[in-house]
Amino acid sequence: MPLPQPDLPEPAHPTVDSMLSRKFGKEIANYFSGSPLNRVSFLRPDHTFLSQALNHPSTTFVLFNNLEPLVKGPSELAQRTFADVKAVVGEDPFHRSEEDQIAQYNSSLYQPQIIFLGLDERKEGFIYKEHYKGQPWFAVDVTPKESVKEAAEKLVAGLKSEGLDFSKGRMNLSLPADQAAIYAEARHLLDWNARNPYCASCGYKTLSVNAGFKRTCPPKDIAESVTNAGDRPPCATRTGISNLCFPRTDPTVIMAVVSADGQKILLGRQKRWPKYWYSTLAGFLEPAESVEEAVRREVWEESGIHLGRVVIHSTQPWPYPANLMIGAIGQAIPEGETIHLGHDAELEDAKWFTAGEVREALRVGTSGLGEDAGPEYKEGGLRLPPKTAIANQLMTAVVNGFASGTPMI
Amino acid sequence: MPLPQPDLPEPAHPTVDSMLSRKFGKEIANYFSGSPLNRVSFLRPDHTFLSQALNHPSTTFVLFNNLEPLVKGPSELAQRTFADVKAVVGEDPFHRSEEDQIAQYNSSLYQPQIIFLGLDERKEGFIYKEHYKGQPWFAVDVTPKESVKEAAEKLVAGLKSEGLDFSKGRMNLSLPADQAAIYAEARHLLDWNARNPYCASCGYKTLSVNAGFKRTCPPKDIAESVTNAGDRPPCATRTGISNLCFPRTDPTVIMAVVSADGQKILLGRQKRWPKYWYSTLAGFLEPAESVEEAVRREVWEESGIHLGRVVIHSTQPWPYPANLMIGAIGQAIPEGETIHLGHDAELEDAKWFTAGEVREALRVGTSGLGEDAGPEYKEGGLRLPPKTAIANQLMTAVVNGFASGTPMI
Ligand SMILES: [Zn+2]
Ligand SMILES: [Zn+2]
Repeated sequence: MPLPQPDLPEPAHPTVDSMLSRKFGKEIANYFSGSPLNRVSFLRPDHTFLSQALNHPSTTFVLFNNLEPLVKGPSELAQRTFADVKAVVGEDPFHRSEEDQIAQYNSSLYQPQIIFLGLDERKEGFIYKEHYKGQPWFAVDVTPKESVKEAAEKLVAGLKSEGLDFSKGRMNLSLPADQAAIYAEARHLLDWNARNPYCASCGYKTLSVNAGFKRTCPPKDIAESVTNAGDRPPCATRTGISNLCFPRTDPTVIMAVVSADGQKILLGRQKRWPKYWYSTLAGFLEPAESVEEAVRREVWEESGIHLGRVVIHSTQPWPYPANLMIGAIGQAIPEGETIHLGHDAELEDAKWFTAGEVREALRVGTSGLGEDAGPEYKEGGLRLPPKTAIANQLMTAVVNGFASGTPMI
Repeated sequence: MPLPQPDLPEPAHPTVDSMLSRKFGKEIANYFSGSPLNRVSFLRPDHTFLSQALNHPSTTFVLFNNLEPLVKGPSELAQRTFADVKAVVGEDPFHRSEEDQIAQYNSSLYQPQIIFLGLDERKEGFIYKEHYKGQPWFAVDVTPKESVKEAAEKLVAGLKSEGLDFSKGRMNLSLPADQAAIYAEARHLLDWNARNPYCASCGYKTLSVNAGFKRTCPPKDIAESVTNAGDRPPCATRTGISNLCFPRTDPTVIMAVVSADGQKILLGRQKRWPKYWYSTLAGFLEPAESVEEAVRREVWEESGIHLGRVVIHSTQPWPYPANLMIGAIGQAIPEGETIHLGHDAELEDAKWFTAGEVREALRVGTSGLGEDAGPEYKEGGLRLPPKTAIANQLMTAVVNGFASGTPMI
């Protein structure tokens, strides 16, 4: 299950004072969402575009070593230039077309992963085909390994001599909202590529294409050409479109549960959490479930509570490694409020809290998991995750009357 | 992209007349959701439970041949007994524990896929550990192949002689809501298991466990014991929990777009659709996007429209092969209403329709893709997908005032 996140500044996200927001309130932009980049996804197979973007003087590179980003401290990504990574990725990694890369595939060659993240349209400089403007962002895997071990070690040593380093552990990272969203995109894709070197359909090695957003199973492999002319057996991913070629994102449900009368909120805790710390329940969506059904199933399996109506509140990308957290609010049915922890023994405890207790804890008892609660917190009081956690946003929505239209209590 | 679905009866789904429904209206249970089964997911590794459930006289089996379900006609799944499938799956496929199955793994043996779907709590009969009651449902792959070819061929011939057959093509299937949800669960899981015989992390063959809900990469393989004592190289999926072991579900966004003044609705059409047929835009969510961001990106990429606020309406499982459709309503910003189809050329056309045109088309112009519109439809008028499509539910919500609180027009 996902951990609550470290505290962070309010995310900046464009909203309009529209009809929808008059009815539903402002859209909640959860942490890791609100990216400033336009991904221009349809340009990813275009190697002319990628080559030009890679070589533009305004272009920025985020470097990763074993999935850890290069930072200037806990709250700023280091931004580097193409000159820094050239020795690792090569002079022009996009000089061949994708078709040629696939036709000339050689599984014995190592190519460090490059991800095209998007264009920051707030910055001027690069322009492609009139419509597509902004500062290009790329992520590059500079982990010292395989054929680039020496070049990458040299690069890493040089960066360290400048006082930069790769962030160790996600709890030590507290990026502002826009950088967090960029980091999340890069991390999710680097992890997916690293985690999936083989084709799940045929067991052969795959090749990264579409600037890191696709992996394809080539029909030939030059590395095997001595034994069988390099031909591989047929693979189902080559006939039609297969989801196996595209990055995976796992939908996860997380839900604030209110009692039938709307006056109480159900929270649970895991054994490894600090004393007095509770949060909303959560779990993975299963095949062929709606979000609403997954919420009802998870709540019943973990707490024995039966829910009626479920409403979706907001969503949050969660790049550890590949989750989409879907935040919901559900209401218990009157005869289904009895807690039973014996079905799926995931929680150490689950308990009904009054809206007043939760409101007070949101004021004085929130913090990151490894941190102390605020100065007004009194030992023994309820502790909750920080504002950057969608769990916190869901509880806040409930005590502010998301469900009832008027504040509870 | 998902296709609109065939027409089907209104799904029956338990809702409560609660605080949430007074504020938000009734929860929409989209087609393929609303399953009557309790999945009791935590019992799947328990082979004592699975063996007892498999052998209970009340237990029902849904049979699949190359992912096509055995039916009694287009609108009813055929329900069979364990006796029917015993010759294919064996007397007691759960007699060994999962640990033993993994320890004695032999990649050269074929075991037809069995999925435990859940307990239908509306039916009495089977009871396990006091709490878990109802009619057990299983899905079984009886495709004639490998070592069960003959037994499965005999079974299939026997079923055909009874007048039963496997449904050919999804457009010929129009199950009632509860059976559609069960079928969706079975199909999604059978497809996932069939599509992923190899480990994407190490390239070796994997083994189905957890009654079809997990695939594991065993450390030894008896089939390879002659050459290297059966030991396999280390695999990352064996250290800690890996999402690769669990079924994949791809989040997809589908959205009704309203103009800044709330009076118009944006619809698009693909070239292969019938004349005058339009629907809402849709696309896959990408790594590290919130649903709200994915909606804005897809709408801009496909139509050039810039959205402000996005609200999530409801969700729908879509088992072709593994989608979760997340239905949303988004509002264009005043200066972003100009249509431009040139970014990502997915649509043949996109157009603003008045709420009145859409309301009229919802009344007279809906049908499944291969069907004719209703008797009141006039040639040249707008055609739309049927009620069983979430696109239809989204447009209905908009014309009924979901966004504004009062009906538009
Ligand atoms: Zn393959
Ligand atoms: Zn493996």
